[in-house]
Amino acid sequence: MNAEIIAVGSEMLTPQRVDTNSLYLTDQLNAYGVEVVFKCIVGDDRTLLTDTIRLAISRSEIVILTGGLGPTEDDVTRDAVAQALGVQQTYQPEVFENIVAMFSRLGRKIADNNKRQAMLIDGAEWLENTRGTAPGQWLRTKHGVLMLLPGPPKELTTMYEREVRDRLVAMLPKQALRTRWYRVAGMGESDLDQLIAPVYTRYSNPVTTVLAKAGDIEVHLRARLETPEAAEILVEEVGLQVEALLGDRIYSRNGDPLDRTVGGMLVARGQMVAVAESCTGGLLGARLTEAPGASDWFSGGYLVYSLEMKKALVGEADGAEIEAHGVVSERTAALLAQAAAKKSGATHGVSITGVAGPDGGTAENPVGTVWIGVASDQGVETRRYRFPGDRGRIRTLAAQSALDLLRRHLLVQKG
Amino acid sequence: MNAEIIAVGSEMLTPQRVDTNSLYLTDQLNAYGVEVVFKCIVGDDRTLLTDTIRLAISRSEIVILTGGLGPTEDDVTRDAVAQALGVQQTYQPEVFENIVAMFSRLGRKIADNNKRQAMLIDGAEWLENTRGTAPGQWLRTKHGVLMLLPGPPKELTTMYEREVRDRLVAMLPKQALRTRWYRVAGMGESDLDQLIAPVYTRYSNPVTTVLAKAGDIEVHLRARLETPEAAEILVEEVGLQVEALLGDRIYSRNGDPLDRTVGGMLVARGQMVAVAESCTGGLLGARLTEAPGASDWFSGGYLVYSLEMKKALVGEADGAEIEAHGVVSERTAALLAQAAAKKSGATHGVSITGVAGPDGGTAENPVGTVWIGVASDQGVETRRYRFPGDRGRIRTLAAQSALDLLRRHLLVQKG
Repeated sequence: MNAEIIAVGSEMLTPQRVDTNSLYLTDQLNAYGVEVVFKCIVGDDRTLLTDTIRLAISRSEIVILTGGLGPTEDDVTRDAVAQALGVQQTYQPEVFENIVAMFSRLGRKIADNNKRQAMLIDGAEWLENTRGTAPGQWLRTKHGVLMLLPGPPKELTTMYEREVRDRLVAMLPKQALRTRWYRVAGMGESDLDQLIAPVYTRYSNPVTTVLAKAGDIEVHLRARLETPEAAEILVEEVGLQVEALLGDRIYSRNGDPLDRTVGGMLVARGQMVAVAESCTGGLLGARLTEAPGASDWFSGGYLVYSLEMKKALVGEADGAEIEAHGVVSERTAALLAQAAAKKSGATHGVSITGVAGPDGGTAENPVGTVWIGVASDQGVETRRYRFPGDRGRIRTLAAQSALDLLRRHLLVQKG
Repeated sequence: MNAEIIAVGSEMLTPQRVDTNSLYLTDQLNAYGVEVVFKCIVGDDRTLLTDTIRLAISRSEIVILTGGLGPTEDDVTRDAVAQALGVQQTYQPEVFENIVAMFSRLGRKIADNNKRQAMLIDGAEWLENTRGTAPGQWLRTKHGVLMLLPGPPKELTTMYEREVRDRLVAMLPKQALRTRWYRVAGMGESDLDQLIAPVYTRYSNPVTTVLAKAGDIEVHLRARLETPEAAEILVEEVGLQVEALLGDRIYSRNGDPLDRTVGGMLVARGQMVAVAESCTGGLLGARLTEAPGASDWFSGGYLVYSLEMKKALVGEADGAEIEAHGVVSERTAALLAQAAAKKSGATHGVSITGVAGPDGGTAENPVGTVWIGVASDQGVETRRYRFPGDRGRIRTLAAQSALDLLRRHLLVQKG
């Protein structure tokens, strides 16, 4: 079953405001297998809102309006809904009494225009508002239901829980939702899509979504069937095929970000990591300490931005090595990773040295060239990357790739 | 003139995602007197999207679509626009060559489905994407213009600034715009608003916008009048009053972020900074190296996450001091800042040590308590902060406050 959410209010169309009510409602609706297919924000414009409501009820079973239930002239939701449905509104004195009572409880003087809030759309049921003055309304439509909810989040969530949820569940076909959520590192979005599209395009259920951030891709599968068991069997059938294709590029099945995954692997092995960062200037350390409890896997590290700092970290002899091979080189990455582990006493050292740009590129090492090293008692692993994009993207991809190289190192290490 | 913004992508209809692109675009459009009257989010549903586009172009002069320009089957924006306008798309080999070039620069293999990104809607102009592979498109419609922009915020903002803004201004009624842009650190949004509202509320022109991120507030003034001279006089009149109220809490008048401002101050003084970070784990170093040329002001630093790393940085004797005073203490902040400068040879050392949480809080140092130190030949400055919010916000505020404390130290330092 499909739902649409319409937020009403010109203030919601300013550069500062986001519609958080729709996030709450989407979460609630998804839990019952209802998909939100469209959501929008309309200003205090009766005509535009009326058209929007007409369209919504013509194509979706559940239409939720939030906001615009106040007493003033520019609170147009009630009027627009009545107009869209071609019905009248009737003044309900006993509801106005409640509003009066609420006002006096708040020690506020009621204005005559508050009577507008006591206008009930013909055919609607009241939804009680225990946190504010604007009652909501619940209406059957040709294809389903339409509801008017207040804009203030506290009033909306309370009204949803007390008045809406049960009414909604009662009208829903029993449907169970089962999901899979894979997070993938080390490949591009289009490569991943080419790899798994042959599988997921064969199924309209589960629904597959692919989300890509820099060096980080999420694959979501959502299966809906009559029973939890049937939905689980279906999502498992497709999920296993996707897992087989992605293999160890999947770093998380529970939504954990890469840093938390790596942290968990280190903790499970009773190991710690230290970093030596040049072009990322601390991004890798910041990633490794994003999750609470980072002190269980992260000892610390060295921001070796200048040549002097690099030499100071590795010591006299290896310092000469760095000058000989150049700061952006396999040898330097190896020496920095080893020194980070040795000097900090951590079991693993990870290093990043490269050209983030926009300047400093050479024929041999153009902008985007980054060497990453991982050192442990299993030896040193180094890899050369060539990252696209601007300085910010190159640095983000470098930190992400360093986490993934460490993850792969931990996957294969013996003992 | 009216605008509508349509965000495309099923992932944007999940409970976790908000459409921040529309906030940026609204801010940009408002600056030129364009009002956003409707915005919506549509999933990867070609039919629904086509209907939405038809409606938008029928009632608004400016229609902006964001997202859905990727290479995969569920990137439906191009097809939906072509269908809504009743026109064809043509494959542009030379554009595909650019995409191929971008991929090979990244050393990545291009997938055949990337050809979809080189399909130009008949009558459209390309909008170059310098940050990603999906080019945008610009189309004249019966009532105005329609544009297709990429979903990733960095790609969108860059494309807007490079390709869209001038085209847009050219079609808007001529009006001179003069602006002031202040960036402010070290105060909360509501404090700032209380301080300057008495000034800006007296003027409907210039339009004043206050944008707040963690520890970082932007104040925009936009004056619109017939001539540049008149607009300049007006924005200057209001700007001077705002500057007088905010004083040295204004760190930038040209939009430079705090890290670049501090970097510029250091370069102007021929000085360098090094960091010693505990709870921020590298965030401060990452901030100080965001801008190109960071090697002119940043030497490097030390991620002293564990007690051992802290002791190793300050040495035997001071290590005992740290144990005596505790890691979250004024003394420790001072010792770490001094050691960071001394050991790296930088003129300035900045330290951060605190409780980012969610665990580790004590009665004396509850979660959010952070000590920041700045050391130079002028002596050591320390300050205790108590930051609100979750771990992520506390860490962000700590790095931002450290940059600001360094800025103030540089402002007042002698010789």
